[in-house]
Amino acid sequence: MDFVGSHILSVSQFDRAAIERVFEVADEMQPFANRQKVTRVLEGAILGNMFFEPSTRTRVSFGCAWNLLGGEVRETTEVKTSAIAKGESFYDTARVLSGYSDMIVMRHQIEGSVDEFASASRVPVINGGDGSNEHPSQALLDLYTIKKEMAGRGKGVDGLRIALIGDLRYGRAVHSLCRLLSLYDKVHFTLISPEELGLGAEYIDEIRMAGHEVVQSTDMATGISHADILYVTRTQEERFPTQEEADRYKGLFRLNQTVYTENCEPNTVIMHPLPRDSRGDANELDNDLNENPNLAIFRQTDNGVHIRMALFALILDVADQVNQTARDVNWYTAKRF
Amino acid sequence: MDFVGSHILSVSQFDRAAIERVFEVADEMQPFANRQKVTRVLEGAILGNMFFEPSTRTRVSFGCAWNLLGGEVRETTEVKTSAIAKGESFYDTARVLSGYSDMIVMRHQIEGSVDEFASASRVPVINGGDGSNEHPSQALLDLYTIKKEMAGRGKGVDGLRIALIGDLRYGRAVHSLCRLLSLYDKVHFTLISPEELGLGAEYIDEIRMAGHEVVQSTDMATGISHADILYVTRTQEERFPTQEEADRYKGLFRLNQTVYTENCEPNTVIMHPLPRDSRGDANELDNDLNENPNLAIFRQTDNGVHIRMALFALILDVADQVNQTARDVNWYTAKRF
Amino acid sequence: MDFVGSHILSVSQFDRAAIERVFEVADEMQPFANRQKVTRVLEGAILGNMFFEPSTRTRVSFGCAWNLLGGEVRETTEVKTSAIAKGESFYDTARVLSGYSDMIVMRHQIEGSVDEFASASRVPVINGGDGSNEHPSQALLDLYTIKKEMAGRGKGVDGLRIALIGDLRYGRAVHSLCRLLSLYDKVHFTLISPEELGLGAEYIDEIRMAGHEVVQSTDMATGISHADILYVTRTQEERFPTQEEADRYKGLFRLNQTVYTENCEPNTVIMHPLPRDSRGDANELDNDLNENPNLAIFRQTDNGVHIRMALFALILDVADQVNQTARDVNWYTAKRF
Repeated sequence: MDFVGSHILSVSQFDRAAIERVFEVADEMQPFANRQKVTRVLEGAILGNMFFEPSTRTRVSFGCAWNLLGGEVRETTEVKTSAIAKGESFYDTARVLSGYSDMIVMRHQIEGSVDEFASASRVPVINGGDGSNEHPSQALLDLYTIKKEMAGRGKGVDGLRIALIGDLRYGRAVHSLCRLLSLYDKVHFTLISPEELGLGAEYIDEIRMAGHEVVQSTDMATGISHADILYVTRTQEERFPTQEEADRYKGLFRLNQTVYTENCEPNTVIMHPLPRDSRGDANELDNDLNENPNLAIFRQTDNGVHIRMALFALILDVADQVNQTARDVNWYTAKRF
Repeated sequence: MDFVGSHILSVSQFDRAAIERVFEVADEMQPFANRQKVTRVLEGAILGNMFFEPSTRTRVSFGCAWNLLGGEVRETTEVKTSAIAKGESFYDTARVLSGYSDMIVMRHQIEGSVDEFASASRVPVINGGDGSNEHPSQALLDLYTIKKEMAGRGKGVDGLRIALIGDLRYGRAVHSLCRLLSLYDKVHFTLISPEELGLGAEYIDEIRMAGHEVVQSTDMATGISHADILYVTRTQEERFPTQEEADRYKGLFRLNQTVYTENCEPNTVIMHPLPRDSRGDANELDNDLNENPNLAIFRQTDNGVHIRMALFALILDVADQVNQTARDVNWYTAKRF
Repeated sequence: MDFVGSHILSVSQFDRAAIERVFEVADEMQPFANRQKVTRVLEGAILGNMFFEPSTRTRVSFGCAWNLLGGEVRETTEVKTSAIAKGESFYDTARVLSGYSDMIVMRHQIEGSVDEFASASRVPVINGGDGSNEHPSQALLDLYTIKKEMAGRGKGVDGLRIALIGDLRYGRAVHSLCRLLSLYDKVHFTLISPEELGLGAEYIDEIRMAGHEVVQSTDMATGISHADILYVTRTQEERFPTQEEADRYKGLFRLNQTVYTENCEPNTVIMHPLPRDSRGDANELDNDLNENPNLAIFRQTDNGVHIRMALFALILDVADQVNQTARDVNWYTAKRF
């Protein structure tokens, strides 16, 4: 895969070599993301951070990654009031907005919208999430986190045992992660969900075709007992036809310290694409796990910045220049990263 | 006209010499807008990009133009939740916000609001659109596009034959463009619209007083037959009392490749202030024209960045310094501009 | 008080020495805020400007202050659509967002929310307003304005006579200002409000315990007659259970030029935390005072930028470096500051 000038629309663009290249550059981004060093390699470049569906985390993460490379961000968070609402096609929106920036990140609730947008754009486009379809940078940061967490435990991704828990039907993070993991060898998937929210048959077939083992379960206790990674998800309320229907599945699978201690092997890593729903009736990942060193959920979001910096640097062909303009940070930075 | 420190509130501030000066500087901005060169001439300067009426295109275009000169943008896209909604006067808003920035772009749906705002502002203000009244940078970019397109055809603006099509009553872009064109010699205007959406008599009188010919028509086929420029507009739904009333005029004048081939002279330029309404019942400018090289609508929006950069540079008196700090772009840029 | 790496959550963190230190640095920020000089001391640093309650003035003021030090701003103005609305805890939001920036300013309508947020944040947090509770930078800019205005009149803060007028119950600006003034010597407070909107007993006790005199009044004319400072406030409509209840108190105390001339000593300073409600039925501070040189309300908001720059510089430990990277502004700046 040649990154320079490419759109990033789907995880299916990636093979193992491409993934490893992203991770290599992501590693190099760490001193910048951790505020030890500053680079100005993209000084004068503009990111169009176009979020036509609400998002704080992902939007700020992309914007921050761009800023850390020295570039400027122009942004939209408008949904109903945008030109699209006045009948403008994605083609027109793309042609226009791509005249304003060097790269575009786009999120929109309609599946396939970002593909349509990218085909008309004159600059590279990264899919920041199109409905329940794709969100490739999330999958990459998840896999990057798995790789780093496993490395800290003396293991790799090949042979990984992962339990995916919760709403596996609507969670696009899960779909994309499964695709990426399928590129590795002999991964063991345990899928734990209410029957109606199970992972789609097409995904399961794809995983099995790639030579991996898949076990489905509705019982969390046994499902999590031999996993290296627990990947817990929130019920994707906003994808359900009604709130009532979504509420039916809330709180069915709850992981807390007691459940963890009773069932998991030591050092089992806990992940979640966030936000986790901490309301009493949901609470899929209890706050009593916050001090558990195996809770990797905030390392995940930190890793998101590294991954997004890496994608930007590779697409704009500045990965090799990042260090040339580097200097030490001259302000107070907490040793909390 | 002395640009330094001036507000840009209306096209009536401009004479031919002032327009030519803006266009001259706009030409110089091209290598920066096209991402061949970077300048940092406004490094440390702040733009207050104050949009109290929704806008993606114009807002991002202004912000991008400022960024391309090296400055920072602080922005508002809030409408109902701003201090104005708590009873704050435009005077107060202007006094306060002008303490935060070096220049302000303001859009507000109330006609005259930006004038009121500017009279209290301590920094230069550009009108980014006040209701159906004025939007001077749009008129300048339209005229700049006309000039460049005609130059490519070995012609100038004097003697131009332009057909204005659609909602000429509420379209402020049309009003302002007519005023600017009136400064040139012997322009021939063909006004094509439903009777109820015709250009206001005061505008027609003004054009005729300036020595130009005006023909009104409700028949598009003949109206467009001898034009150099077709300037098509969207029905300004948001200016109508009800949606029903707006819908009555949707789709009355539609330009597509067949209509174009049958009626227009070769190389007739097609313009539109955008967004164009691509929904089936409107579709004033068909997508089958997208590959027509005379479709200038995206060159128009690209030109908007040049024009806005030029206005900023002239008002802040840095037009002559832009090249002093210029350097080559060091990242990948598509050859798509 | 050691500023480096600290959160700024409440005025109760400040003693007189700390306040004087902030004011000293704020004075040094003036040439930068007034666009005479540019500094790039925070080039590469990112502010997370997180406003979960609408605000234009305060949000832009913080963002501008950060930009003036050379840093970049990532922002949110989303309320209902944020992850918090999907059930995310302040703990999670803080852990995540603090991975994206070097400092965070947060506003949220829930009292105590910013404290909760700060305790989980990995970077310093400034409280930008939590409901009717605290808004420390507003109190500091108010006190800074008082100090500068009194200095211009050959006086200091010790021995000050201040009249606070209007909604003293819900106005958090008033609460925090009283706390700061209590640190000085022999301040004389006149509290003028409808009985139901009087300053809470706990605040009055605190002021008296600190050795100051407090007089309560419902009559404005006599209340303002011997004051150095009139601090007028808007009825905080958004804190009342219903609009009807808020309306009952609108327009009860109105200051205009006639009232001022008839009752006040010459050179009495007029302040207001803004926005002032200029609608006819409220109009607590009449526009006919706009040309009165003692109207300090816009000097107040200008001072806000100095104070916020000072807080940023002290917390990130760059106050001593600001001048090292200073250069003269190279663009046109109005002499209107």
